[in-house]
Parts: sequence; C-alpha cells; structure tokens
Amino acid sequence: MALVVQKYGGTSVSDAERVRAVADHVARTRRQGADVVVVVSAMGKTTDDLLRLASDVSTVQPPRELDMLLTSGERVSAPLLAMALAGLGVDAVSFTGSQAQIITDTTHLNAKIVEVKADRLRAALAEGRVPVVAGFQGVSLDRDVTSLGRGGSDTTAVALAAALGAEACEIYTDVSGVFSADPRIVPEARRLARVSFEEMLDIAASGGRVLALRSVEFARNHGVPLHVRSSFTWEPGTWVVEEDPSMEQAVVTAVTHDISEAKVTVTGVPDKPGIAARLFRALADRAVNVDTIVQNTSLHGTTDISFTVPKTDLEVSLDVARALAPEIGAGEVMADDGIAKVSLVGAGMRSHPGVSATMFEVLATAAINIEMISTSSIRLSCVVRADRVEEAVRLLHQAFELSGG
Amino acid sequence: MALVVQKYGGTSVSDAERVRAVADHVARTRRQGADVVVVVSAMGKTTDDLLRLASDVSTVQPPRELDMLLTSGERVSAPLLAMALAGLGVDAVSFTGSQAQIITDTTHLNAKIVEVKADRLRAALAEGRVPVVAGFQGVSLDRDVTSLGRGGSDTTAVALAAALGAEACEIYTDVSGVFSADPRIVPEARRLARVSFEEMLDIAASGGRVLALRSVEFARNHGVPLHVRSSFTWEPGTWVVEEDPSMEQAVVTAVTHDISEAKVTVTGVPDKPGIAARLFRALADRAVNVDTIVQNTSLHGTTDISFTVPKTDLEVSLDVARALAPEIGAGEVMADDGIAKVSLVGAGMRSHPGVSATMFEVLATAAINIEMISTSSIRLSCVVRADRVEEAVRLLHQAFELSGG
Repeated sequence: MALVVQKYGGTSVSDAERVRAVADHVARTRRQGADVVVVVSAMGKTTDDLLRLASDVSTVQPPRELDMLLTSGERVSAPLLAMALAGLGVDAVSFTGSQAQIITDTTHLNAKIVEVKADRLRAALAEGRVPVVAGFQGVSLDRDVTSLGRGGSDTTAVALAAALGAEACEIYTDVSGVFSADPRIVPEARRLARVSFEEMLDIAASGGRVLALRSVEFARNHGVPLHVRSSFTWEPGTWVVEEDPSMEQAVVTAVTHDISEAKVTVTGVPDKPGIAARLFRALADRAVNVDTIVQNTSLHGTTDISFTVPKTDLEVSLDVARALAPEIGAGEVMADDGIAKVSLVGAGMRSHPGVSATMFEVLATAAINIEMISTSSIRLSCVVRADRVEEAVRLLHQAFELSGG
Repeated sequence: MALVVQKYGGTSVSDAERVRAVADHVARTRRQGADVVVVVSAMGKTTDDLLRLASDVSTVQPPRELDMLLTSGERVSAPLLAMALAGLGVDAVSFTGSQAQIITDTTHLNAKIVEVKADRLRAALAEGRVPVVAGFQGVSLDRDVTSLGRGGSDTTAVALAAALGAEACEIYTDVSGVFSADPRIVPEARRLARVSFEEMLDIAASGGRVLALRSVEFARNHGVPLHVRSSFTWEPGTWVVEEDPSMEQAVVTAVTHDISEAKVTVTGVPDKPGIAARLFRALADRAVNVDTIVQNTSLHGTTDISFTVPKTDLEVSLDVARALAPEIGAGEVMADDGIAKVSLVGAGMRSHPGVSATMFEVLATAAINIEMISTSSIRLSCVVRADRVEEAVRLLHQAFELSGG
C-alpha cells in the first residue's frame, strides 16, 4: 500500500477544532487507500509561550534544558491528534522523537539527524495503525532530548519519509503552496504547481518562508517529493520535485524578498590574504549566519567589506567586527538595519543571461538604488532600501510576467 | 555526603516566581552540605488544562495517549527548574521519568513501579550535579510513557529516595504539615511534629489530603522517612516515620473527614455464601474503589449491604449493582450522595478500648446520626450526613483534646 507522510504545522493544530479537522483529513486519506504517518508541530504559539516562561525563570538557559522544555509542545499535540483519530475510529498511536528512534548528534537547539530507525513506526503500520510522531525532536547519542532547530518538524517529516520509503511527504500549512511572489504584496501572484528542489532551496534561502532550507536539502538529498499545501482549504498545492531536464524551464519562477536582515560594513580593510577569513571565522565561531558578502576590488591597498546577517545577529556581529577591526588594521564598522533583499529565482536563468540586465533596468527605471548584488546559478539578489522592497517585488513580478494567465 | 530527595507539588511551582523560590531553597540545601535530587510536579493547574483540552478534542481517549499527554506538564516544570538552578550557579540537569529509568508495568493512568534503575541520576550526583526529575511518570516494559496515578509525583520521590538510599524524602506542598484536623474547619488544630507510617496511612485513607496513600505505603515498605512541609514558609513540618514502640502513644492523633464519597445500598440480598463476593468482584472489574462496606446480620434469610465509593464512581457502581441485583436475587439498589465520613486515627487506640464509646457519645449528644461504622486497629470511622460533618470534626477534636497547649 502507498505510504504518505503528512506534516501539520502549528497553525494547522492551533486549537481543538483544528486538531479535529486534521484528524478528519488523515482519516479521509486512509479511506482513499494510503497508509499515513503523521508528524505534528506544537499547537499555535506554544513554543513562544515556553520561551517567554524560560526567560521569566532564568537568564541562564542551558541548551540541553531548553531542548527538554521546547520539545514538550509536540508531546501535547501528538497524543491529542491520536485521540481525535481514535474518536473517528482510526487506530492511532503517538510517538516522541525518541520513541520514533530519530537519533541525532549532541548539538542542542540545532541537532542534526544521524539515523532514523523507526522500527516502532514500521510495526505500528504493519498492525494497520496510524503513527503520530512529535515533530522537531530527537534523542541524542548521549540519550538526551534534542531539537532540530527552525523548521524542525518539516525535517522530521522528510527524514521519516526517506527512512520509510514514503511515496511523498505532504507539508500542511496555513498557505496553499509556493507562490510566484508573496500574495500579500502581489495580489495577482500565482501558485506554482511544481518547482524543483534547486529552485525551492533558493526560494527558501532568499526569504520564501513556506519551507525551511534544511528540510528541502534533506528532501533533495534523499529524493523525497514534497507537496506543500493548505490545511484550511485542503486543495492541491505546490509539488517540490527533482528537476526534469526534458521540460522547458521558465526563465524566472518566483520573486522573493527578505526584510529580516541587516547590513554590516567594515571599511578600510587591508587587501591582504587571510584578512576576510579571520573576520568570517570569528563570526562563524559566534554562530552568526552570514548571508550575502560583497567585497569590492581594492583601489588603494584597502577595501570595504559588506555583509548581511539576520537582524537578531546584528549586535553580536558588530561586537565581533569591532573587536577585530584594530587587530586586522581595518577602519570603521557600520551597521544598517534599513535594508531588504529582493531576489529572482528560476532554473531557466542558467541558460538566459539577460535576466540580470532586465532586473537592474527595472529597478533603475523606478529609481530604486541597488546597494549589493549577489548571484547563484539560478538566483539573482539585490539589496535595496527596505522601504522600496515591496515596490521592487511588484515591478519585477510584472516585468517577468509571473502572474501567468 | 547525605542525600535528600525533595519533591515540589504543583502549587510550589505554579509560576516563574515560585520556580525561582524553589531553586533558592534547593541551592540553600546544597550549601548546607547535602546532595539533592529534586522531583517536580506540573505547574499549577496544568494537568486540569490538559484534561480539558483532551475532552475538547475527543470523547475517545485511549489511556496510552492520555498518559503521553498528561506527562507533558512535568516535561515543562523540570527543565524550567533546572534553568532556575543554573541561574543560581547550581549545575542541574533535568530527567524525564524514562531517562531516570523509572520502569513500570503497562497499566496506563495508574502504573505500578517495577524497578528504579536511576543510573543516570547516580552519575549526575557523582559529577556534583542536581538531578531534577519529572514526577508522576515512568516508562513501561513496552517502552511506552506511563503515569503513576493520583499523587504520582510523591510516589516518584519516595521510589527515588528508596533506590538512591536517601536519608529522607521531603514533600513540599502548600500546607505546613499534617494537622490534628483540617485547619479550615478547626482553627485551633495542631501541626503534628511526628506521625507513624501506620497513622499516616489511616489519615490518608480517611480524607487527609496531604499525602497520597500509595506514596506512604511505598515509604513504609522501604523505610523512607518522609518530611511533609511548606514551600511557602520553608519551616519544619511533619515527619512520617517508623513507629517507635518505646514511646508513649497519644490515644488519638487526628480527626479526619472525607466528603468525596457516596453510599450505595443493595437491599434484600440472599444470605448465601459467595453473593457478596460476586458483587464486589464485579465492582473491582470496573476499577471501582470501594471504601467502607457494612453488612448487617441476616434476620429473614436476606440482608442489606451498604458500601461507599468515590462520588466519581457512583454512576458505574449503580450500573454494576443494578445489573447484578436480579441475578443474585437481591432487591432494590439505592444511592445516597449526601453522606460524609468522620474518622479518629491514633496508634494508641490499639490499647485504649474506650475510644469508640466516647466517639459515639459525642456524636449522640449533638444528635448527629451514625449511618455506618467501620474500624481498623488504629482508626474508627463513622458515616454521617454531609451537612453535619464539620460540626462532628470540631466536637471530636475538642473532646479528645487534640489542640494541645
């Protein structure tokens, strides 16, 4: 029998009524003849509430203890969903990450999955039961409870789909799929029926919030087809699959944007080998997630290095850069949190070199200044002023005719 | 170094401030030179909230899933307390029941402890750390999460104290010990400095709410001294210890009362061997906890049997009795939920036969009718009308001069 893994996010199980709606859909999927493994996130804002409680209790929050705390939310939603299924006559059984044998390394708060045994899930499936697995969590090689970091429940779902050889991994959320741009900014944005793993990776990396980067990487590496869809309308959403080389690629698939980053500029950096390495090693040691890096050609023996970081990492990035600047003979360190990034993503960009020219022209015509540029083989990103980014998204969506129809 | 197990109930960790206060006390105990293992309940009314959520989701609540759900509360309080301790510079580490290797049978909602390995707790203690164990929970021989039923966190604490050879098990709660009567009813009630396990068992069985019966039995069987005390005043409370035969016993130690039971009467029961057995076997099969049973001498070949059960079990008890009555040739089955039980408890009652006479005289003088009487070697209980029970408690407390001083 075909097996599908269904993952439900926090908004999909935010209250008792939503939990029952999810149970209905799981039961429906079973009636249609598929075996189902369910992965569930914590209800609604549970994780935020737990973080607030931790802050009220102590400023010292050992990562091991934070993991024990934060993983409790899925310990609530999983048995509740199993009960809702039981109420519909579906024999369901909940499992913690540990019971599902999701074995991770010992990196608390952002653990990596080492192995998924899932023997108990296989046994439950063989008995005709629906396993409901607490997402976001695993058990470390030291037998401690670990969490998988941001988007962790997606990662759980994809890892289980890979381990169990599922036909597909369905990610249910509060939007109906992946769009050609954020529909709140571009009302005529189109839902994409199908994107490749590569495109999805660049969409996720450049501000598309629907799927976390890591779960997409995991799915690509294990060839697990993803289906992103809504738990409110239940209509088909966006498939994320292997790129099909026989198909003609759209030049540009989506316009994404990201307002969560800030820019740091270090001026007067000596143009000598190893200087940049020291700066970015120091940032990496403090776990700062550096995104775009731009360094201009040196003119007078020194250069300026700019990079973007999540706004939440801005303070620590400035600390690191300012501490290091005198040591490496650099000048000033400046921060700018008024920036945003707009990106074009599309597998067809590989063979269409004119995309960047069009993008720059569109922005120039609207007098939107480009502060930084970065590219990958299927993505083109420009850092602009934050207060112009929505306009940039609309203009680019129009210029590349992404609304279809 | 001396080891003490400290158990904190839900009211002791009801919010962030209370959690920090508990951490202060644990740190203080460590500074005084003792090793500490902490057992913690869920915060405040968490368990009630989870039960309500379960009812909102489904009327079908498989016990295994209910256990997974209900044990999540201690998965929150334990790491929070560990963080609060870390904030005070005390190296603490939280453990689930499973991680603490509290192995139980597979009876969900009321599991019995089969074995306590506690290797990880010993290792943590050896490293100078404070283990904070989630109470109320264990892991079954089938590797499922189980809960230990009412007062389960007390049972966890006593079981760990026994397994680790602790000097004492301190039960912190919102009252300052065990009293000679409920202080809300008898303001001059005295806190008892010391009671025997036997007395405590009868106090718990007859309505004293401070300790659950099962944890006292466990403590008696393993010789673990209990110290019941307040987490609000931190003053010394009541010690529950082995009876010391060399000491003179007070005749009566405490007056207790219980308004949580109802009475069932089955009339016209044939006076033949095995009839009562069939009735109470049928009740036991439905997990009804029968307390007092009274059967009068048969006069005309039939007798009336009355028994008390928790009010929450009244419906099912009536179902059982009414279904069985025709089969065993009995008459009517009647329910009465307007009763209450008042009891005298004291180890000295064994050698003072006049206690029952005094009790009946005190009640008779106040025209309080006695509906049922039951006795143990150190307890004497009368079932009376519920609306007279507080008066009965006050009169008996006075008659036996329990306020001391």
